[in-house]
Amino acid sequence: MDNGFFISIEGPDGAGKSTQIDLLKKHLKEKGYDVLETREPGGTPISEKIRQIILDKGNSEMASMTEALLYAASRAQLVAEVIKPALSQGKVVICDRYVDSSIAYQGYGRGLGESISVINDYAVDTCIPNLTLLFKLPPEIGSRRIDEKSKDRLESEKMKFHQDVYRGYLEIEKKFPDRVVGIDAAGSIEEIANRIADVVDGRLAKFEL
Amino acid sequence: MDNGFFISIEGPDGAGKSTQIDLLKKHLKEKGYDVLETREPGGTPISEKIRQIILDKGNSEMASMTEALLYAASRAQLVAEVIKPALSQGKVVICDRYVDSSIAYQGYGRGLGESISVINDYAVDTCIPNLTLLFKLPPEIGSRRIDEKSKDRLESEKMKFHQDVYRGYLEIEKKFPDRVVGIDAAGSIEEIANRIADVVDGRLAKFEL
Repeated sequence: MDNGFFISIEGPDGAGKSTQIDLLKKHLKEKGYDVLETREPGGTPISEKIRQIILDKGNSEMASMTEALLYAASRAQLVAEVIKPALSQGKVVICDRYVDSSIAYQGYGRGLGESISVINDYAVDTCIPNLTLLFKLPPEIGSRRIDEKSKDRLESEKMKFHQDVYRGYLEIEKKFPDRVVGIDAAGSIEEIANRIADVVDGRLAKFEL
Repeated sequence: MDNGFFISIEGPDGAGKSTQIDLLKKHLKEKGYDVLETREPGGTPISEKIRQIILDKGNSEMASMTEALLYAASRAQLVAEVIKPALSQGKVVICDRYVDSSIAYQGYGRGLGESISVINDYAVDTCIPNLTLLFKLPPEIGSRRIDEKSKDRLESEKMKFHQDVYRGYLEIEKKFPDRVVGIDAAGSIEEIANRIADVVDGRLAKFEL
């Protein structure tokens, strides 16, 4: 590929994203692609420092807009330092969470609305995924899969918050039907991995035509 | 006062802002005002953590937009946690740097332009200073006043950057003639303190009419 292919992975916590990212990476490498995996918030030394502030349970007084701007700052650095360079080298970039997470969690969950899209348009500077895989799993089920003690500041939010986030994801799916593909996150690991491989293989084949 | 009065202090580094803020605070306290002094970036525990990331010389690979978003994040927290509550208690708030610093340093210095105003409109959520004192001192002179070794990541930038920043400040002064008052930062400490006291006393008198 002359230009890379950018895949973002979205959905509620506990939907099995990490496991499936590992399997997707393996699948794409076996097919000969040069794959770069990264995650949000984080993925660069500066972004990891920002991540620590965002997820620290001690920072309970954090204003919603502060949180949204920190996510955008972490993302701007990841785009400039990692994603854009990798795409220009023709790699397949898999990013665990991206702009849609901010729109769902801060825009819908925290009620910050349209501001999130405007701020993130500046943060990502035209770097939009070619394909977004949205893991679909009602938040009531996802939350039960995570150990209470290991939850970070955002995972510990009340169920109402996670329901608003999920509703946000479903709105995004409707709004960007070409980019966003819903993945049914119920079933065995192998079943879900096969669903994902089918979608990604199909898109990559079209992309390279 | 039923509603507080918000003063931001702006201008290049080395213009003597800190000394004058101390004197202004003393002057206002003697006149019976309840004064709260704060600074940017910083002023809350979360904002101080963000400040550390922004000013750390080790973070030399920081993208300009990351820097701008971190300043805005720090500011959003300061507004929500400190400035708005103090103003609603009728205090005079003196803030060492505010939105105009971002417009001058990131908008003009880093060339990020209009994006800075848009992002900061979200960050400050209508909390705009009643009065901005702009310390006017050519950057060539200000820079010489700071010890090389003690300079942080932004103070260490090249002279061209500081000239662009100063040009930005002069544009802001032109654009907001009611809010922004230029203060000639040449002269003795006492002379400058008297200039500032005159401006602030006049504005407070009008504000309370």
